[in-house]
Amino acid sequence: MTHTKIDFPQGFIGFHCNIGLKNNDDDCLMIKSIEPAISIAMFTQSLFSGASVQLSKEVEASYNNFQGLLVLSKNANVATGQEGLDNAKEVRRLAANFLELNAEQVLIASTGIIGQNYPIEKIRSNFQNLQEPLSSISLKKAAKAIMTTDTSPKFYSIKCGDSTIVGIAKGIGMIEPNMATMLAFFFTDAKIKKKNLDNAFRNVVNRTFNATSIDTDTSTSDTAAIFSNELAEEVSSVEFTESLYQCALQLVKMIISDGEGATKSIIVNVSSARDDNQARLVAKSVVNSPLVKTAIHGCNPNWGRIIMAIGKLDTETDIIPDNVRVAFGKQEIYPAKEKIMSISDNNVLQTYLGHPEIEINIDLGISDGRYTAYGCDLSEGYIRVNADYTT
Amino acid sequence: MTHTKIDFPQGFIGFHCNIGLKNNDDDCLMIKSIEPAISIAMFTQSLFSGASVQLSKEVEASYNNFQGLLVLSKNANVATGQEGLDNAKEVRRLAANFLELNAEQVLIASTGIIGQNYPIEKIRSNFQNLQEPLSSISLKKAAKAIMTTDTSPKFYSIKCGDSTIVGIAKGIGMIEPNMATMLAFFFTDAKIKKKNLDNAFRNVVNRTFNATSIDTDTSTSDTAAIFSNELAEEVSSVEFTESLYQCALQLVKMIISDGEGATKSIIVNVSSARDDNQARLVAKSVVNSPLVKTAIHGCNPNWGRIIMAIGKLDTETDIIPDNVRVAFGKQEIYPAKEKIMSISDNNVLQTYLGHPEIEINIDLGISDGRYTAYGCDLSEGYIRVNADYTT
Repeated sequence: MTHTKIDFPQGFIGFHCNIGLKNNDDDCLMIKSIEPAISIAMFTQSLFSGASVQLSKEVEASYNNFQGLLVLSKNANVATGQEGLDNAKEVRRLAANFLELNAEQVLIASTGIIGQNYPIEKIRSNFQNLQEPLSSISLKKAAKAIMTTDTSPKFYSIKCGDSTIVGIAKGIGMIEPNMATMLAFFFTDAKIKKKNLDNAFRNVVNRTFNATSIDTDTSTSDTAAIFSNELAEEVSSVEFTESLYQCALQLVKMIISDGEGATKSIIVNVSSARDDNQARLVAKSVVNSPLVKTAIHGCNPNWGRIIMAIGKLDTETDIIPDNVRVAFGKQEIYPAKEKIMSISDNNVLQTYLGHPEIEINIDLGISDGRYTAYGCDLSEGYIRVNADYTT
Repeated sequence: MTHTKIDFPQGFIGFHCNIGLKNNDDDCLMIKSIEPAISIAMFTQSLFSGASVQLSKEVEASYNNFQGLLVLSKNANVATGQEGLDNAKEVRRLAANFLELNAEQVLIASTGIIGQNYPIEKIRSNFQNLQEPLSSISLKKAAKAIMTTDTSPKFYSIKCGDSTIVGIAKGIGMIEPNMATMLAFFFTDAKIKKKNLDNAFRNVVNRTFNATSIDTDTSTSDTAAIFSNELAEEVSSVEFTESLYQCALQLVKMIISDGEGATKSIIVNVSSARDDNQARLVAKSVVNSPLVKTAIHGCNPNWGRIIMAIGKLDTETDIIPDNVRVAFGKQEIYPAKEKIMSISDNNVLQTYLGHPEIEINIDLGISDGRYTAYGCDLSEGYIRVNADYTT
């Protein structure tokens, strides 16, 4: 089930190029399913969602299917008013012509700087000069064409019975998705009912991308979508969901390990909560705490900060401090044992904190709610990249 | 009204020394009102509040008055179990003996590292050797004795009619107080009814310390208190509240400008909100956004991040993006004018962002709710101090 290949599933073709947004690198990706596909898309819940999200949301709201995808990188086309909306419509139409689809069949997504209009004349002229036909393209090059500040392309492929699920994702800052990550797209030839695809996708997105936070900042452009052309054999919903989950989880792990300035991934597992929602609030509070993130960056086993991050939650709670147990990996740290009190002497903990992936396990001792949150440490690198990044 | 002096008001005496927590610097402050005082205290709402907070809260809950104050620095005595509680009781008793008060008349507060017990034998022996009597002490030295990671003492004095209000505060990390800042203490000789003192203090704390966030992390030790010995003439509630507000505001400005790693203060004014609570949520979201904080650190007029931080709030809202107006100081930046679109060319904005105190003004265009939040930028210095700080 974990066999990895680097092509799109059968029946998906595409094209990537520089359309005039980045200097030289690819900044435009188009993918098309040759056969009509079924699709599900989820979008940012930001009030200030961009023109691309607005257009694509309108189509999704009618429960129509997308058959093509257009992704533009480096300019989010957000907070650009009527001109931005007109530009998004024109660019979608140009891509639809190239893909030989109707405009409403194309999901448009765009990320990058906020508040600047597309260089629309340049894009228009570059589209008119596109010569090469759509063809089979590599997953890696597709993932590369949608990057902005990412330092590496994020893609994964997994078999599910006779069929294949592939995913590409981007985004390493302004990441605390609320319904979807910045950009994540999945393509499959699995035969599955649209209703089951919908359930599987929402279930997986909530457990993976929506459980991820690099910096608590929710993008105005988040979009996640899955396209299925159903060219392979039928698979069970359970098997499909599990495969899709594994594929999304690998992309999430790539996103957090490439988090802006990140040197380590942090995975917070909360168990024995009153319910999954309480577990989620605790996991998010810990994974988002700047003091926990910097302590882990410094291999500093300052577990008091984990206690602090649990304690700062709403006081209307049934969490009893004496019943809470906290561990770094398998090493229990709270309730404190006398030996562990002198944390700077604890070699086992310091060695563990040197690993590239740190697990914090929190048992709330109440009931059986659970949740896992994904994040990364906070380093000088995050400051540097974000103090300077504009264009 | 803004005359600044550096002594405590009449009738307050004190003592500061090294009691064995820091290496050489003062780590222990005791203050006593010679006459019985009235007092109001507010504490952290953290679930994991420390032993000192638990003891002091118990007294405050009975609405009794404190007449003395004991502050220990460098060790928070938090998450230390029964031994920590026993230690806190013993230290409070030792201080009460020295101050010639009952234990329940002494407010004990303690901040610093979490999860380590006091070196109780050393403290016990140092208390036994204290020789010097209580005397008039300087506000600056008192403020210095309560510092942990602070780089400068925080104190302020203001006249209110015939009386004086002075305040000292500490705390530059793990700062998003929920009811009180890490430590802030006020002393006054103003004659005022306890009920009016209570109203004034809660009103002022909510508008100042509770509106402050350095890193979204709420301490387990937050304590704020005011002591009044009523030796001066009576003042009106309105005048007293205004003077106390000015005193607290100056301390908050000192806290944010000394924020861990901070190079600039950020003040976010939200107006025309549906109500004050909506204004508070928007102001906090902007002042806490790592991307806004790093942009301001880099003098980067990337106003898209302010829009993002407003947009990431709950979608169940009546905020209409087209009615929102955002300005850096007096320079309007949203809705975007074509000239400002090319933000890297905007000299006026870049010059403004070079100032040590940046104001972000947000008009939501709904009704007349308003709130001001206080914070600071996020720099490499924050990472450095928190990746290493343990002991």
